[in-house]
Amino acid sequence: MRQVYFDHNATTAVDDSVLAAMLPYFRDRYGNPSSRHGYGREARQTIDEAREQVAASLGATSAQVIFTSGGTEANNLALHGLTSGFRPSRLIVSAIEHPCVMRPASALARRGWDVHSLAVTADGSLAAEDLRAAFGEPVAMVSVMLANNETGVLLDVACVAEEAHQSGALVHTDAVQAVGKIAVCFDNLGVDAMTISGHKIHGPKGIGALIINKQIDLQPMITGGNHEKGLRAGTENVPAIVGLAAACQLAEQNLARNLLETRMLRDRLEQGLRPLGAVIFGERSERLPNTSNFAFPGIDGETLVMALDRAGYAVASGSACSSGSSDASHVLQAMDVVWETARGAVRVSLGQNNTTREVDGFLRALATELGQLRNIPGIFLGPVE
Amino acid sequence: MRQVYFDHNATTAVDDSVLAAMLPYFRDRYGNPSSRHGYGREARQTIDEAREQVAASLGATSAQVIFTSGGTEANNLALHGLTSGFRPSRLIVSAIEHPCVMRPASALARRGWDVHSLAVTADGSLAAEDLRAAFGEPVAMVSVMLANNETGVLLDVACVAEEAHQSGALVHTDAVQAVGKIAVCFDNLGVDAMTISGHKIHGPKGIGALIINKQIDLQPMITGGNHEKGLRAGTENVPAIVGLAAACQLAEQNLARNLLETRMLRDRLEQGLRPLGAVIFGERSERLPNTSNFAFPGIDGETLVMALDRAGYAVASGSACSSGSSDASHVLQAMDVVWETARGAVRVSLGQNNTTREVDGFLRALATELGQLRNIPGIFLGPVE
Repeated sequence: MRQVYFDHNATTAVDDSVLAAMLPYFRDRYGNPSSRHGYGREARQTIDEAREQVAASLGATSAQVIFTSGGTEANNLALHGLTSGFRPSRLIVSAIEHPCVMRPASALARRGWDVHSLAVTADGSLAAEDLRAAFGEPVAMVSVMLANNETGVLLDVACVAEEAHQSGALVHTDAVQAVGKIAVCFDNLGVDAMTISGHKIHGPKGIGALIINKQIDLQPMITGGNHEKGLRAGTENVPAIVGLAAACQLAEQNLARNLLETRMLRDRLEQGLRPLGAVIFGERSERLPNTSNFAFPGIDGETLVMALDRAGYAVASGSACSSGSSDASHVLQAMDVVWETARGAVRVSLGQNNTTREVDGFLRALATELGQLRNIPGIFLGPVE
Repeated sequence: MRQVYFDHNATTAVDDSVLAAMLPYFRDRYGNPSSRHGYGREARQTIDEAREQVAASLGATSAQVIFTSGGTEANNLALHGLTSGFRPSRLIVSAIEHPCVMRPASALARRGWDVHSLAVTADGSLAAEDLRAAFGEPVAMVSVMLANNETGVLLDVACVAEEAHQSGALVHTDAVQAVGKIAVCFDNLGVDAMTISGHKIHGPKGIGALIINKQIDLQPMITGGNHEKGLRAGTENVPAIVGLAAACQLAEQNLARNLLETRMLRDRLEQGLRPLGAVIFGERSERLPNTSNFAFPGIDGETLVMALDRAGYAVASGSACSSGSSDASHVLQAMDVVWETARGAVRVSLGQNNTTREVDGFLRALATELGQLRNIPGIFLGPVE
């Protein structure tokens, strides 16, 4: 019996139709797109078509799509590749970016960049006055995520882009968590660069893209052959590119239904969470429809997640990407959540195949586990004021 | 009817057994290895086992294996990651490295490094006196490939490593073309870092590894989560990692047979090429058993490759990775091959499933095409002195 999977912000199963689209490219149509013979030309045409599909599903043009090995590489490419033409000046990021934006930003700080971290409100949103104040000095680049991976809170990237462009700054957004959950249009956002990932939208792991405004100067990180117009070297991962295209199309087709259904499930979940004493992070903000991040003050999140794991439910504590760290989430810290509450954070992220029955079963299991944990001295630390 | 595939140094078909090993990890065992629930732990255990398999097949230990998105990324990581702890000094590379070593080396040169290019002989091998002379100044790092992708010529990396270590330099080798074709043992080579790739050994595209000596300081290029012990961020590409492990095991199992069979086919091919007037590059050097790089003086390589393509044979002109460039190969230039001959280069790289019948058919087709091309004024430019 498999666990009920409630961790779609960490990764998703490859959809049957996506895998079916990929399969011919492993054993039969296996050419290297740089080869000039029949196998190579077939592979080249395949990735050209996939690039068109990815672009079309995201409001971009195919020339704007640079395939990478995933969201992390695309975010690194954006931060390093867009800044390398500038002398160190100000780089603005939100305080709740993913580590794969934060760490490249720290590397830039070590090279003399003034990295300005935008505060968020207690609800996890950007504060408009802080945003304007950040542009008080010359800014080269801004990177603000479209949706936070932990809380699901949506940031007003279009507004950030407008402010940034008035100051002549370049704007990047990490849209990894937004695609497939809300409508995402590169053209409408008005950003210069946008990161997407395959495995968050029922596509394969190991593939993502940076969508870029072709007017701007981007320097490659990984160099070698002239793949991806010289912006990302390495033999193109043809099956994964085909899978990303199929997943983007699927995400676009299923968006309205997925949005409604996961929101309905999420609301049902949260209606059940509140009577159990949950604090729900970011609940007053616009959020991704599928994400609920909550804590029971006094209950350790890790302990609860492991108890739920044994009960048959796969949920996350904090962000999967920071596993190995026992610190409280930097996202919740930025929202001024007290440590004792933040360390209780549990994230449920729903997918299109989850059911009301699964949500109801989860709530029952949760009530049982909470009851047991609250009776164990030292684990129930008492409510926090 | 598919073309006969004679371009195994460009890419290979994923083996049936490799694909079978990968398949469960797309739809069923799709967890993120950083997740702590059942799906995540299963994925973590899977990549731990794969890491053991990759290490065991290459004479390394699992702690030495860093998975990357492919050979190009691993070579970039080696060049940038191993040098970043040093002040600019001398970096030695061979003159016949792949562009994904050459371009990072050029980037280092722009940052003040003294990049010394080791000459090769007319046979494509390293000259021992040049090698010793290169260590006349303090050297921080050396990167020399194990087998050249175009000619198949083997470089004496163990000797380079000995010389380098006497000078206190770090040594990296790009073993992408060697694995699966000759015996490769990380431990025996005595290098500090070694690059491998999945798709050259009937594994998937989009996966490779850098094998490193854990005593040395390697800085990551792609940062974010603490994946791969902090040396390469990004959600691990579980199916591709499983595929790489299966491909490494397969390569090890099939090595002796593959070596004998492709050498037999290559010898048969070259016996047929000589009477047709071919110059065979590197034929007096130790070479990969599967590779033959040759030219018919006066015949343009591109034209011949396209003619053979129409006749049903997929072969390469120069290196697939430098497609888009009409310059003669830098490898053949380094071997002092005159331009008129170098531009005629055609590479046949055989695989374990090729047959004598295919080789014989190729020789007949080649004779026919050569006859036609030699009768076309302007394409047959006459023999070159």
